[in-house]
Amino acid sequence: MKRALGVCYYPEHWPEEIWTEDAARMAEAGLSWVRIGEFAWSRMEPVPGEYHFDWLDRAIDTLGAAGLKVVLGTPTATPPRWMADRHPDMFARAPEGRVRGFGSRRHYCFSHRGYRRECARIVTEMAKRYGTNPHVQAWQIDNEYGCHDTVLSYSDAALTAFREWLAQKYQSPQALNRAWGNVFWSMEVASFDEVGLPNLTVTEPNPSHVMDFRRFASDEVVAFNRVQTEILRRHTNAPLLHNYMGRETAFDHYDVGADLDVASWDSYPLGFLSDRLKVSDQHRAQFMRQGDPDLQAFHHDLYRAVGRGRWWVMEQQPGPVNWAPWNPAPLPGMARLWAWEAFAHGAEAVCYFRWRQAPFAQEQMHAGLLRPDSAPAPALAEAAQVAGELADHGEAGCAPAAVALVFDYESAWAWQTQPQGRDFDYFRLAFEVYKGLRKLGLDIDILPPDAADLSQYRLVMVPGLATLRDPLRQALSRFEGVAIVGPRANAKTPDFATPVPLPPNLPGFDCIVARVESLPPDCAMPLETGGAFRHWREFLEGDGQVVLRSEDGQPAMMAAGSLRYLGGWPDPEALDAILRDAAGIVDLETQTLPEGLRCRCTATHRIWLNYTADPIRHGGMDVPGCGVAFERLEASPEAAGT
Amino acid sequence: MKRALGVCYYPEHWPEEIWTEDAARMAEAGLSWVRIGEFAWSRMEPVPGEYHFDWLDRAIDTLGAAGLKVVLGTPTATPPRWMADRHPDMFARAPEGRVRGFGSRRHYCFSHRGYRRECARIVTEMAKRYGTNPHVQAWQIDNEYGCHDTVLSYSDAALTAFREWLAQKYQSPQALNRAWGNVFWSMEVASFDEVGLPNLTVTEPNPSHVMDFRRFASDEVVAFNRVQTEILRRHTNAPLLHNYMGRETAFDHYDVGADLDVASWDSYPLGFLSDRLKVSDQHRAQFMRQGDPDLQAFHHDLYRAVGRGRWWVMEQQPGPVNWAPWNPAPLPGMARLWAWEAFAHGAEAVCYFRWRQAPFAQEQMHAGLLRPDSAPAPALAEAAQVAGELADHGEAGCAPAAVALVFDYESAWAWQTQPQGRDFDYFRLAFEVYKGLRKLGLDIDILPPDAADLSQYRLVMVPGLATLRDPLRQALSRFEGVAIVGPRANAKTPDFATPVPLPPNLPGFDCIVARVESLPPDCAMPLETGGAFRHWREFLEGDGQVVLRSEDGQPAMMAAGSLRYLGGWPDPEALDAILRDAAGIVDLETQTLPEGLRCRCTATHRIWLNYTADPIRHGGMDVPGCGVAFERLEASPEAAGT
Amino acid sequence: MKRALGVCYYPEHWPEEIWTEDAARMAEAGLSWVRIGEFAWSRMEPVPGEYHFDWLDRAIDTLGAAGLKVVLGTPTATPPRWMADRHPDMFARAPEGRVRGFGSRRHYCFSHRGYRRECARIVTEMAKRYGTNPHVQAWQIDNEYGCHDTVLSYSDAALTAFREWLAQKYQSPQALNRAWGNVFWSMEVASFDEVGLPNLTVTEPNPSHVMDFRRFASDEVVAFNRVQTEILRRHTNAPLLHNYMGRETAFDHYDVGADLDVASWDSYPLGFLSDRLKVSDQHRAQFMRQGDPDLQAFHHDLYRAVGRGRWWVMEQQPGPVNWAPWNPAPLPGMARLWAWEAFAHGAEAVCYFRWRQAPFAQEQMHAGLLRPDSAPAPALAEAAQVAGELADHGEAGCAPAAVALVFDYESAWAWQTQPQGRDFDYFRLAFEVYKGLRKLGLDIDILPPDAADLSQYRLVMVPGLATLRDPLRQALSRFEGVAIVGPRANAKTPDFATPVPLPPNLPGFDCIVARVESLPPDCAMPLETGGAFRHWREFLEGDGQVVLRSEDGQPAMMAAGSLRYLGGWPDPEALDAILRDAAGIVDLETQTLPEGLRCRCTATHRIWLNYTADPIRHGGMDVPGCGVAFERLEASPEAAGT
Repeated sequence: MKRALGVCYYPEHWPEEIWTEDAARMAEAGLSWVRIGEFAWSRMEPVPGEYHFDWLDRAIDTLGAAGLKVVLGTPTATPPRWMADRHPDMFARAPEGRVRGFGSRRHYCFSHRGYRRECARIVTEMAKRYGTNPHVQAWQIDNEYGCHDTVLSYSDAALTAFREWLAQKYQSPQALNRAWGNVFWSMEVASFDEVGLPNLTVTEPNPSHVMDFRRFASDEVVAFNRVQTEILRRHTNAPLLHNYMGRETAFDHYDVGADLDVASWDSYPLGFLSDRLKVSDQHRAQFMRQGDPDLQAFHHDLYRAVGRGRWWVMEQQPGPVNWAPWNPAPLPGMARLWAWEAFAHGAEAVCYFRWRQAPFAQEQMHAGLLRPDSAPAPALAEAAQVAGELADHGEAGCAPAAVALVFDYESAWAWQTQPQGRDFDYFRLAFEVYKGLRKLGLDIDILPPDAADLSQYRLVMVPGLATLRDPLRQALSRFEGVAIVGPRANAKTPDFATPVPLPPNLPGFDCIVARVESLPPDCAMPLETGGAFRHWREFLEGDGQVVLRSEDGQPAMMAAGSLRYLGGWPDPEALDAILRDAAGIVDLETQTLPEGLRCRCTATHRIWLNYTADPIRHGGMDVPGCGVAFERLEASPEAAGT
Repeated sequence: MKRALGVCYYPEHWPEEIWTEDAARMAEAGLSWVRIGEFAWSRMEPVPGEYHFDWLDRAIDTLGAAGLKVVLGTPTATPPRWMADRHPDMFARAPEGRVRGFGSRRHYCFSHRGYRRECARIVTEMAKRYGTNPHVQAWQIDNEYGCHDTVLSYSDAALTAFREWLAQKYQSPQALNRAWGNVFWSMEVASFDEVGLPNLTVTEPNPSHVMDFRRFASDEVVAFNRVQTEILRRHTNAPLLHNYMGRETAFDHYDVGADLDVASWDSYPLGFLSDRLKVSDQHRAQFMRQGDPDLQAFHHDLYRAVGRGRWWVMEQQPGPVNWAPWNPAPLPGMARLWAWEAFAHGAEAVCYFRWRQAPFAQEQMHAGLLRPDSAPAPALAEAAQVAGELADHGEAGCAPAAVALVFDYESAWAWQTQPQGRDFDYFRLAFEVYKGLRKLGLDIDILPPDAADLSQYRLVMVPGLATLRDPLRQALSRFEGVAIVGPRANAKTPDFATPVPLPPNLPGFDCIVARVESLPPDCAMPLETGGAFRHWREFLEGDGQVVLRSEDGQPAMMAAGSLRYLGGWPDPEALDAILRDAAGIVDLETQTLPEGLRCRCTATHRIWLNYTADPIRHGGMDVPGCGVAFERLEASPEAAGT
Repeated sequence: MKRALGVCYYPEHWPEEIWTEDAARMAEAGLSWVRIGEFAWSRMEPVPGEYHFDWLDRAIDTLGAAGLKVVLGTPTATPPRWMADRHPDMFARAPEGRVRGFGSRRHYCFSHRGYRRECARIVTEMAKRYGTNPHVQAWQIDNEYGCHDTVLSYSDAALTAFREWLAQKYQSPQALNRAWGNVFWSMEVASFDEVGLPNLTVTEPNPSHVMDFRRFASDEVVAFNRVQTEILRRHTNAPLLHNYMGRETAFDHYDVGADLDVASWDSYPLGFLSDRLKVSDQHRAQFMRQGDPDLQAFHHDLYRAVGRGRWWVMEQQPGPVNWAPWNPAPLPGMARLWAWEAFAHGAEAVCYFRWRQAPFAQEQMHAGLLRPDSAPAPALAEAAQVAGELADHGEAGCAPAAVALVFDYESAWAWQTQPQGRDFDYFRLAFEVYKGLRKLGLDIDILPPDAADLSQYRLVMVPGLATLRDPLRQALSRFEGVAIVGPRANAKTPDFATPVPLPPNLPGFDCIVARVESLPPDCAMPLETGGAFRHWREFLEGDGQVVLRSEDGQPAMMAAGSLRYLGGWPDPEALDAILRDAAGIVDLETQTLPEGLRCRCTATHRIWLNYTADPIRHGGMDVPGCGVAFERLEASPEAAGT
């Protein structure tokens, strides 16, 4: 398949006179895709029921005429001002009760049925008009679900819908009381109408209550999205996408993805490093103009799973952004490197955000491929370079991986609901394991928690999975490589109780987590073989073989057959030893990559990416600082760095 | 008196089939007391007015049949869900106006008269049914007053009651205006109905307003508690208790205690160290699995005062808890050591919380004596060991102390209301003085601020007492040992004004605090004899003898007769010198205890407690790490460590 | 003009019997002015419409009889309790919607028309009664506008008034939509009634929306103040003042000042250093008992500009205050030094706050010239010393400065609205530039952003000016010294958009800011000549001469003619080099002042001020620690230190 570049464009922001030239310059830079429309509801329907699509017709024509393929966005992330008068109660509410009103974006509650009907209406109009337009070759639904912490809403609409959801799930309040353990603290309810939202309580609410609210809220995102997919499917055969965010776990992306054809995500390497990663200040400073060397790759692999193999980068950072605590400029080369990291992981398209920097409104400090004065910004030339290189290296999809990491959204909710130690963070745990694998030069697949077939893999990692469900349990019992499960795995029943018999209850493995402890940041538990457990440590019992001990003599990891249970959160040194040991058992070749150098294999090449500013020579390859090198596989290495 | 162990149990959490075995195992472990019932309102009265006591009858019978004595709790800390429909305005409100609603516990405003009537109703039913039950040998009223910051409520009910309280106190708005100094900033009111609650103001409210609100709120806890004591007294002769919390100063415990027979408190050494003490990170890390070496002892001595000599530990941490920022596991031995620390200070009973770890709801990560799978958790064997040892060492009460420390709840409110330096904390000040005394191996009594007889003592410490009232003033004027008063003592009139003449106004002592300054954490004022004042420093004037000076030549402590006035917050080094000097004057023998070793005398033994993980040899005693040693008094030392 | 001292006094706080003695002691200490009345509304009008001015008559008579001149304050910062019943909606609301109610001070919304009428009423009464009273020689309007964050209000009154203000400004909603760029995110409005306040949005509101709200809010302060000036002008010829605060930028002080005769401000050197400056902990500790060596001077120069040459210190800290995080006591001498710093900068009067420390209410821990027991506090003797010295050194106004710094309130709002880097703070930037100049021993004028005549100056600094408007642009184009503009200058259009062509658009200067980046605190960009850019860095392009480069070879400062554009936030080392270089070009003599030593010239003297505790010898002058020295200008130096 031909990989391609694209860009996000807002014709409504610019005089119509310059659209033609804009389109020509996009094509000239080698861009193939252009995404439009996703915030333009007030221009499509300036007055309720009065549709103004003529400008959009002309925009699509102009872009299409230049040879560009259009991704058309539904504008439901930005309902116009008049919507607030029609549905005064459509807004989400924050946990403390505050309305989250009009004036920016994403100002709606996913549970509001009236707003869902309005979305169905505008989407129906768009689908009828553009469903078979030859230039519209993909659709994006809404924009960045969950961004600005918008999944959880404590509105009346949410309360009503939550009660209905609970009634469907439990059928009787008695069943709910039993499942949640409401006898504790006299929390029992006599009807579903007595259930509240889990906010505004004196101290922490019942974690089972919170978990059901999290599941409900995720289901509401799925249902909201499905309103639009069902309409669009009736009018178009073009693929349907959504642009997910980075480090966003508030809803189950696998569930939303099941209704879409392609996953895409919005990749802001500098913004995410500045804002959303728990890393040392030294690490943040070292990579502040390049981004974390693994965060993009992690999401690429994750969204490949969400898209069942098909995925894009819908928004690629081209320069400084406006929204992170600090917003440095990328080093020269990074706009190209980031694109190649994506293609190495199998992206079908990488679209830069945005074409021209807007001089007005909220994102006026967000760089584009053009400056506000239409002069080229630095990323434009890098994009053009990638476009040229795609001819040489862009046909192959990513190579199959021998290593898998299970990533589960519900586990993220579980450990937010019950961290037990203030800094226990599921994403961080999974990401640190990913980083440990990638530092060994390994290619990785991310799997959903219901993965039923592990036969492709030699090493499978299952950290922090709150509840191990049947398909994966059975796959693990058949697995012939090495699977490292834990810490904190299968520690909860589906009702969010402690299982009896005690966790982890792995098939054919006598290993019990007798108790656990969380550790403050400065208190590690050293391991006998180097490194330490941080944050979290478990006391293991059972007949399983002890393959690792902590310095106080307690079992730290136990093994039985293909399965290993890891009883703590390993620091990088301990993780490295554990992974190298496991890789050795299954004959997985590992490397020792220099800091900041990473690689990923496609079917034909190993693509080397250097996140440092200085050139690196490694294993016969020369990789320029902030550069990329292409090593042809199954032949003598042929370097092609820049 | 025979000291005893006990445990907290929730029969309503478990199938009735296992109650008998549970009771048998409790008895087998040497436990004597079992507390039940305090959160079970929804099971006692699932529908308003329908009482279901049969299960509780059977639970009490089963426990009693096993030889256990029952502490029966009134369930008023967890009103059922239906209560919210009967009294929609019964909830407390947070300072910013937010309702603190149903869904966890302690969801009531102490001032709500309708809820008080509901409490009277359920307690009347229980008292009638169980008042003379032979197995019910003590009653606990409600649970942990003040926990989760629940004393102060900004509800309409609180406003109404506050106005009534003010009208009773001041009789006329003019008197209130004068007392508060309302002429300042035109805050005068023309009627009590014009007085608001001291929240939602633009900048700080009048501190006299805040102080009266604090006093009122404390009185409301007393009144709420008294509703139940008055009913219970009519139906039972069993002692009445409440289980207070640690480091909780929002209401006057002496006042509540005056209506009860025995004080008890809930001792969570690891949770409190993790969450509620201002100590260095190094100290926190060093003792994170043992608890602070003095915090338990401080509360034991405090609650002995609150209980006028009679006190228990009602909930003793047995393993990791669920609620602190981080929750490490105690080191082996600590569940025994903590019990012996309590008995050394005169506890009549120590009850572990809880029997079996609950697998569901909010506290599923809170350890018990049993694991969720009913296997013994580590603390069970330690409890059994203590039960065995009680025969040897458990008859004697604690020895009389020669040192007293005055602790006053109103002063805690005073300096929260007007810290003047951001980190001025009365509890911390008093606790640091306590720690300084205990490091010298001294036994300490804690006294209320109205203590009228100091004749038992040779050294009396009065730090930070906001207002010195008559009984203590007279006792000090008669005192023949050394009393060290200050810093910040007698600095406020009862109306919370600065007294004129200026503080401290000690009897027969010409010493004036001419002005004060608060100091940031990194800015100490060194003393000529070593150590320094931190946080707080006063400029003293007068004819009193200057017995200590700061490096800038200012008087730091002045003396006249038995009285010394200390004009600053001493750091540990300065405090040590001040205390040793004072002890020398009155021939009090002091020791220099190694870090983490502490002792307390009973009538027959000096009990040594080693809070470190390593054995300590001191003064001829060998005390194992996390262990206890019993030194027989008035005979050649006889060590019995474990 | 004769400079004078004064004091703030609250006759209503004290028994009438002591007024006469108080007045006599004031006069004896050499005080000339006494400010009264500004919080006494509840005593002037205890019941709506019932005026009680007799006590105020007697107070003014008593003070006047002692030879004191009265500044009479209008009491509108503290409406009485009954006002809340007349205007229940008069209170401001915080951004999250919370009412900011009665119980402290400044509890009113500037936009509430009903409250404005009440203010007009009480001021009319006062003006009629005292407008020609011979003892009342100045009027203060209200008190500390903006203190406690009171400029911005999110009340219904503010919303209504904001819509009217927008309608006046834009005339049509279409114009508003265009100006704000509301097409972005479908934020377009169809009428002014659809515009909301820029709070309670899901993510950040449109910055143009915020900026107009900031401008509106500032205009409301101006309008509120003007209600009173217009009334007073009709009844009195005495000068009208307001007492501004320190480090307060929420409204445009130049605009308020345009309606007044004299500016005054409330100078709390220790409180401001503790609470309102971003400095290192080391710096804070070093000067905690003296105050920052430049902060007072900065405000003196600023308020000289706001008062168009005429200004006072209306409240001068005399000892520890009550409101900062920590409140140390000033070192001996500072109450005198601070007064001389003010007179050196041209103050007409310096009034200490307050006469006697109040023993009651909110400020009972705030020192006065007298202690609560009427004994002299340390500052009284220092004030008397200054009074004596004024005869020798108090006639001359401050000397004209050769250096100017443009300071603009709207720029403070701009960079709060859009910091782009979390710690980008306009005040800090301007203050650091000021500090750099002052360390060189230079005298400085602060200029408003519409300054039209720079001919007096040789060096002009324009850091961070959001929008360069015509008068200053033209003045710069005519300027013959060196003007250093930037960083982040002229970066916004008046509508708060990015200008095209790109900034800075300086006259006759081809220099473009192609893009910008913000830097985390630990990430500096070193400059080739030493020092570094911190916080902020720009990429410059154009034909201007590059006069400074960063280590990565990018232009850091460009020059053309008299103009230099500085493309980053210089650290102190870099700033020092830049300023010395510029001063050299224009033959400005600079010094290298020892840490903590500062100077300012009057027409006759250079006044040296030593903010350290130790004596300093510099350039032939001996300046005692915390002392002042007077160097006669244009003659052989004659030192007069203390």
